[in-house]
Amino acid sequence: MIIIVVGATGTLGKKVSDAFAQKHKVIRVGNTKGDVQVDITNEASIKAMFEKIGPFDALISTSGKGPFAPVKEMTGETFKKGLLDKLLGQVNLVLLGQHYINKGGSFTLTSGILADHPVAAGSALSAINGGLNSFVIAAAPELENGVRINAVSPNVVEDSPAYFDSFPGEIPVTMDKVVKAFEKSLLGIITGQVIKVY
Amino acid sequence: MIIIVVGATGTLGKKVSDAFAQKHKVIRVGNTKGDVQVDITNEASIKAMFEKIGPFDALISTSGKGPFAPVKEMTGETFKKGLLDKLLGQVNLVLLGQHYINKGGSFTLTSGILADHPVAAGSALSAINGGLNSFVIAAAPELENGVRINAVSPNVVEDSPAYFDSFPGEIPVTMDKVVKAFEKSLLGIITGQVIKVY
Ligand SMILES: NC(=O)c1ccc[n+]([C@@H]2O[C@H](COP(=O)([O-])OP(=O)(O)OC[C@H]3O[C@@H](n4cnc5c(N)ncnc54)[C@H](OP(=O)(O)O)[C@@H]3O)[C@@H](O)[C@H]2O)c1
Ligand SMILES: NC(=O)c1ccc[n+]([C@@H]2O[C@H](COP(=O)([O-])OP(=O)(O)OC[C@H]3O[C@@H](n4cnc5c(N)ncnc54)[C@H](OP(=O)(O)O)[C@@H]3O)[C@@H](O)[C@H]2O)c1
Repeated sequence: MIIIVVGATGTLGKKVSDAFAQKHKVIRVGNTKGDVQVDITNEASIKAMFEKIGPFDALISTSGKGPFAPVKEMTGETFKKGLLDKLLGQVNLVLLGQHYINKGGSFTLTSGILADHPVAAGSALSAINGGLNSFVIAAAPELENGVRINAVSPNVVEDSPAYFDSFPGEIPVTMDKVVKAFEKSLLGIITGQVIKVY
Repeated sequence: MIIIVVGATGTLGKKVSDAFAQKHKVIRVGNTKGDVQVDITNEASIKAMFEKIGPFDALISTSGKGPFAPVKEMTGETFKKGLLDKLLGQVNLVLLGQHYINKGGSFTLTSGILADHPVAAGSALSAINGGLNSFVIAAAPELENGVRINAVSPNVVEDSPAYFDSFPGEIPVTMDKVVKAFEKSLLGIITGQVIKVY
């Protein structure tokens, strides 16, 4: 398979790319680093990425930023920035990518535990992750040519110790488990599923 | 109670406003009609509405538009418009309204069944509704002074026959049931809940 990993130079993306690279051709995409660069907040940039790479069999996104801010201090502008980045950015990878992906291919986006289990200052990320999960459920039955779509929704991961204090009571998940979730999506048959890693 | 209903001149809002008006002071807000006008896609307009109305005990939103379009034809621009209207618009009613609402007050937003049960051409509304549901879950524990927040998530309603064909297999819910859901949110004690009317 030819697998595009958008966010391949990040914490999740690196381990996921390394795992798939053992048996597949992985194109590592970052914002500033990687084999190819893209800005998911910019549709023209996404299009340019697909034009450059050409046909592919799977797209994994482990990219997308959302703001942390207490509800009391959250502004509409800050909230909007997150919606247009992690939510719309990943949706646009699918909306544009559907016209380049091979028959029987798959999209796998990354949401996160905050969709169901909130933490302090996480309301924007909760909204973003909840939105991504529902998008995947809704887009799956409409994709053509056997193309599938799922979301991986991880808890805080063991490789991100800086976030541990923001997730009290949560047991960080191993990167192995996160990688397995992406394998389930790409190599399995499911579509329209939110694969919770928690 | 002083209750602001944003969207009071619409299908849901009219019935909800009429019900609460029997025992409460209802301020009916529309976009072009109503006692007061607001554009929820414009933060300055929302602020002006709160300044004009002054302190209140409950805000109900039955407003917010999202686009219907097949995934195959959906553009990022169309999707974005929906996010900035029904999702961010309702979120901004809360972000700004938290600074005007009375102690012990409540916010009740409207999402919809598409969050969990997709229909053709509904992927943007699914994402919007899923985002709203997760926002409510996450914002509730952070609101201060005993202020509560819930979402009402209706199925297609009996008063919207034009939508029936878009929701095959769904049994339209009565407006009575929808009104009851808002009563549960405003007059009950729950917070951070998605009240499903289906
Ligand atoms: N870390 C966790 O514990 C955790 C848990 C649950 C969910 N998640 C979610 O998983 C995703 C990845 O998290 P992470 O911790 O791996 O993030 P990260 O280490 O910050 O990596 C982010 C990756 O995305 C790329 N990127 C940044 N901005 C971009 C843009 N505008 N367009 C395209 N690519 C962009 C970065 O590229 P460059 O390196 O080139 O800048 C990098 O490859 C995020 O959506 C996060 O919310 C993370
Ligand atoms: N109808 C259903 O079966 C159904 C089912 C599930 C969920 N919902 C959701 O419930 C909500 C209300 O639906 P509805 O069918 O009652 O809609 P509707 O009949 O079209 O009414 C919309 C209301 O919102 C106001 N409005 C429109 N744009 C606005 C803006 N930019 N800022 C502030 N107010 C604005 C309108 O004011 P003016 O009259 O002054 O223009 C009107 O009061 C929507 O979010 C919808 O997705 C509806």
